[in-house]
Amino acid sequence: MIIHLKEGIDDNIVLALAEQNECLYYKKNNQYIFINSSSVKQLPQALESYTESFKVLSSDIQLASKEYQAEKREIRVGEEIIFGGNSNNTIVITGPCSVESEEQLDISAQNCVKNGVKIIRAGCYKPRTSPYSFQGLGKEGLILLDGVRKKYGLKVITEVRDATHVEDVIEYADIIQIGAKAMYDQGILRACSEIRKPVLLKRGFGSTLQEFVQAAEFILSGGNEQVILCERGIRTFETKTRFTFDLCGVAYLKQYTNLPVVLDPSHAMGYAYGVADLARASVAMGVDGLLIETHPTPKIAKSDAAQQLDFNQFNEMYQSLEPIAKAVGKNLI
Amino acid sequence: MIIHLKEGIDDNIVLALAEQNECLYYKKNNQYIFINSSSVKQLPQALESYTESFKVLSSDIQLASKEYQAEKREIRVGEEIIFGGNSNNTIVITGPCSVESEEQLDISAQNCVKNGVKIIRAGCYKPRTSPYSFQGLGKEGLILLDGVRKKYGLKVITEVRDATHVEDVIEYADIIQIGAKAMYDQGILRACSEIRKPVLLKRGFGSTLQEFVQAAEFILSGGNEQVILCERGIRTFETKTRFTFDLCGVAYLKQYTNLPVVLDPSHAMGYAYGVADLARASVAMGVDGLLIETHPTPKIAKSDAAQQLDFNQFNEMYQSLEPIAKAVGKNLI
Amino acid sequence: MIIHLKEGIDDNIVLALAEQNECLYYKKNNQYIFINSSSVKQLPQALESYTESFKVLSSDIQLASKEYQAEKREIRVGEEIIFGGNSNNTIVITGPCSVESEEQLDISAQNCVKNGVKIIRAGCYKPRTSPYSFQGLGKEGLILLDGVRKKYGLKVITEVRDATHVEDVIEYADIIQIGAKAMYDQGILRACSEIRKPVLLKRGFGSTLQEFVQAAEFILSGGNEQVILCERGIRTFETKTRFTFDLCGVAYLKQYTNLPVVLDPSHAMGYAYGVADLARASVAMGVDGLLIETHPTPKIAKSDAAQQLDFNQFNEMYQSLEPIAKAVGKNLI
Amino acid sequence: MIIHLKEGIDDNIVLALAEQNECLYYKKNNQYIFINSSSVKQLPQALESYTESFKVLSSDIQLASKEYQAEKREIRVGEEIIFGGNSNNTIVITGPCSVESEEQLDISAQNCVKNGVKIIRAGCYKPRTSPYSFQGLGKEGLILLDGVRKKYGLKVITEVRDATHVEDVIEYADIIQIGAKAMYDQGILRACSEIRKPVLLKRGFGSTLQEFVQAAEFILSGGNEQVILCERGIRTFETKTRFTFDLCGVAYLKQYTNLPVVLDPSHAMGYAYGVADLARASVAMGVDGLLIETHPTPKIAKSDAAQQLDFNQFNEMYQSLEPIAKAVGKNLI
Repeated sequence: MIIHLKEGIDDNIVLALAEQNECLYYKKNNQYIFINSSSVKQLPQALESYTESFKVLSSDIQLASKEYQAEKREIRVGEEIIFGGNSNNTIVITGPCSVESEEQLDISAQNCVKNGVKIIRAGCYKPRTSPYSFQGLGKEGLILLDGVRKKYGLKVITEVRDATHVEDVIEYADIIQIGAKAMYDQGILRACSEIRKPVLLKRGFGSTLQEFVQAAEFILSGGNEQVILCERGIRTFETKTRFTFDLCGVAYLKQYTNLPVVLDPSHAMGYAYGVADLARASVAMGVDGLLIETHPTPKIAKSDAAQQLDFNQFNEMYQSLEPIAKAVGKNLI
Repeated sequence: MIIHLKEGIDDNIVLALAEQNECLYYKKNNQYIFINSSSVKQLPQALESYTESFKVLSSDIQLASKEYQAEKREIRVGEEIIFGGNSNNTIVITGPCSVESEEQLDISAQNCVKNGVKIIRAGCYKPRTSPYSFQGLGKEGLILLDGVRKKYGLKVITEVRDATHVEDVIEYADIIQIGAKAMYDQGILRACSEIRKPVLLKRGFGSTLQEFVQAAEFILSGGNEQVILCERGIRTFETKTRFTFDLCGVAYLKQYTNLPVVLDPSHAMGYAYGVADLARASVAMGVDGLLIETHPTPKIAKSDAAQQLDFNQFNEMYQSLEPIAKAVGKNLI
Repeated sequence: MIIHLKEGIDDNIVLALAEQNECLYYKKNNQYIFINSSSVKQLPQALESYTESFKVLSSDIQLASKEYQAEKREIRVGEEIIFGGNSNNTIVITGPCSVESEEQLDISAQNCVKNGVKIIRAGCYKPRTSPYSFQGLGKEGLILLDGVRKKYGLKVITEVRDATHVEDVIEYADIIQIGAKAMYDQGILRACSEIRKPVLLKRGFGSTLQEFVQAAEFILSGGNEQVILCERGIRTFETKTRFTFDLCGVAYLKQYTNLPVVLDPSHAMGYAYGVADLARASVAMGVDGLLIETHPTPKIAKSDAAQQLDFNQFNEMYQSLEPIAKAVGKNLI
Repeated sequence: MIIHLKEGIDDNIVLALAEQNECLYYKKNNQYIFINSSSVKQLPQALESYTESFKVLSSDIQLASKEYQAEKREIRVGEEIIFGGNSNNTIVITGPCSVESEEQLDISAQNCVKNGVKIIRAGCYKPRTSPYSFQGLGKEGLILLDGVRKKYGLKVITEVRDATHVEDVIEYADIIQIGAKAMYDQGILRACSEIRKPVLLKRGFGSTLQEFVQAAEFILSGGNEQVILCERGIRTFETKTRFTFDLCGVAYLKQYTNLPVVLDPSHAMGYAYGVADLARASVAMGVDGLLIETHPTPKIAKSDAAQQLDFNQFNEMYQSLEPIAKAVGKNLI
């Protein structure tokens, strides 16, 4: 249940009410919003006199649901870049899997600028499954990202791997990316719920849509309303491709949630050869953005070598997206 | 290994050679083509003097592979309708899940004609998972399909459920559909390998891409070269949607096989609300065709009620496909 | 709904009633049993005066459910061998994946006899996924099986691959095995519903438990009450082993159905090394039987070479099962 | 590659060598052990003169592999309790899903003592998928666990949910449990690699066996050799049960790794009715331990209510395990 309290209630009373009634809460403008389990179907009596309005939801997808708020949330990165809302934008984000060096990042940033791409992606804390692989440059990488942000006026999205460095990523990123393997990480989710910066939350590859959106509820219920969902492929029995891109799930998210949706065909496919086709399919779905991995020289990439596009492949693909975006009434940015 | 024999070898010798060397074979024009296991890497000595050329393949995806034949196969339904080849066609097929009555089928056929759709789909032998559900009209349905074919000049695709009625379906259908649950059925596959009519083979929802294309090899290796592959969703842990549409798999099929690919978003999604988005994504993938379930009144459909579009939904969606097809260089038919 | 009619109703009336009320039916002793969809919650008025008793079921798992019949069904193979019922038997079935030759089969039969195993398994129609692999000896294999049955007094279980040869398998087998890939094959299921011989139905590797038991309903609803369920592994994202053995599913089947359950660890594992451990786990589950693949010389087996035990491995494993069976109150046969 | 350096090399040299050659390392007794990627197949020249012996491994399952060390690792909890090694122990661990109150925990501890169970489990930081569910008592729970440890002489295993409280769990637990949702959490894995306490690592329900054991490598490669693997069910298409218990995977782990394996049938099944059967199957697999959830009154449990056994169910089940353990040569503790 989501409960909008009347304005002007004393903060101490709010705190006590929340605790007694097992509610999470946050303040929006001058109003407190309480949320308790969706299994509670009756407004708690103790809250009655403080309540302006309330809504009973059918599952713990609450704040993110169209049942609660039908309009798609608008998420701003800086002044100009808008995901969702009424923008009709499909925003392309690209860059290498990992920050590897200043030079590699600089060339990548130049290719963004050349194509008009406004947000660069690159990881500094890599969630590798083996301890014996390249693990990312860490804070050194964040500082390099800060460099290209300043030099080229790009916005930066980068991934937090675990709670030990979440503060650093929050400080340096314009959009904090929570990776698939960290989707359940409450240390990260709670840290992101307390800030007021956009968060791109990737679906765990073994996670249901219900769990995925509930992970977003961890962030939303702390008052950070700027959550973007990202589908990047789920794990199935098929092994010819790295993952299975769940576009049925994307249709579900568009139908039932109020959060912008960004798609990552690079990780879903795992091979460069299919990325362009899947990117075109993604744009035709009318989604709010795309994440595409590119690398100046994919073959020598320190991670995800097989799936990164080189700049020619990216640029050619990018050109092909424009008419599809137009066909579905979207502005490709 | 695929072996092209020299022309003019006596049929009895061919038969003996095939048996001795454990080869399947068929005759194309005046030439015999032998195929044995891909694990055979050396041309059998006994075949040497009869061989014009041969090709060693890396897996039992042989006749269907681009390694063997790089050009996409062309499949004709009647004179005018071409799947694959150089046609650049994306052919939309629609109709109800099941033939339910003459009237229902007639209205459905009219809606095809109205939109310029040239192939109607409808099942007569339904592969239901419960014996207590509607099982289809059987041969009576085939006769009704024959009726609308004649009345409206439509081509007919309909499904064979098991080998007991494969001859009937072969007789009545312009394209024989092998359903997902029958993908491994050698009774059907072998019957279809001996005919020279187009076959649309659906991927089993629990089947790997390797198995899927190998099922096509059963048909191809009997000499029926007219096989269309159809992705219709695979079974995964996600249950908010009926199946998971495997567009990564479609990218694989386009990259590695020479067979036309048709997509069925209706079965993948399982709910009408997502079908249009997925159909647009499918067209943007540049595939050779689409299968969309429609029903005059989906709510009262005897099978798949939740996923069939009504005619308004279909017609609106169909209009939206045209500009996407154009954007990817395809002719929508 | 399952409806027990009163005795002594005229056959023609029964036929008419079944048709008008969309019921399947069969005769047991002198009583007709009708079954219609579990979505029908009220006894059809037209049947009221003919009905002795009826039971509304919660899903289309009807005849197989404990809700309908709490006691486990007893299935006899010949006079002596009893699966289920009150027998407390755990019956071990073994033999090669495929009948390859008279000698191979004869040695295999001798090893059965030596260990006291009473039922031999071996396939004649192999449901291979590639047309270029060994497909089985067909009817020749059935005749060889008949030979060892007569020579050694063994019972024979063998698999039907598709409906084209179902009559032959029914004729030769003591237990008809419906393989995982044929689980949905209504041609086979309906043929098996009309006979009165035991049928071992394997779960499709992509099939839910609901669908699995509903496939059994196809057989049961035709009046063949002798159905044994067999779990043999499902397909998951894990590829280190061939399939994933679903023992949670076995617990479900034991809890909710009245059918005996036999387990096949050989196909689940796909590698000989794990079969003994899984066989011990299976016996500890208190199931009604085990299927174990053995081969005189696994390395040269024409199918499933990796997973078949040699006789030493089998015999050693078999010895280890006895005390576990005893520990869970079962008779190992 | 795993490289055993000669003894007596200066620490600063070791540090420099490790960095230059991209090796992880730890010190065991007086010897440094270096590990780099398994893709390195030749001993780096710079290390040659310092190397006593080295071993090339086929994958990044290195320290955990039988290739490297054939004998199963021995892990001691206190003086008396031994997992693995030559102990032949199967150690039963039980307790509630969550610490809910002092009383609930005390009764649970008493039931452990009554049955001779030596290790109690209970979670304080619950990795719930919804923010609106009970999240655990946190540090207050750890203190309660400390209470029963002292009062009853039990050892305590409890779960770390994310890196923000890993230090607290390390301080209070005798065995640190890394839950399925945290399996990839490098913040936790690295913290656990630096301590010298036993860690029970649960397999992520969407994680391959390869990734699972590689997560153990994160801990092992920091020098903490006390890692226990725990299979607790993977996510598949089957939804009648909560997860699918992967006993084929357990056979793999036993065959290829040197780590003790503990099984958790409670989470795999998700329903109390199947837990006893699966526990018996687990013991018959010859594993090193079992985790079973119990609760004084499961119906009112604040988490996992459906799957927890009450004490009667547990005690009855526990009695039945003894003869099976004996049958497979194991000591049930």
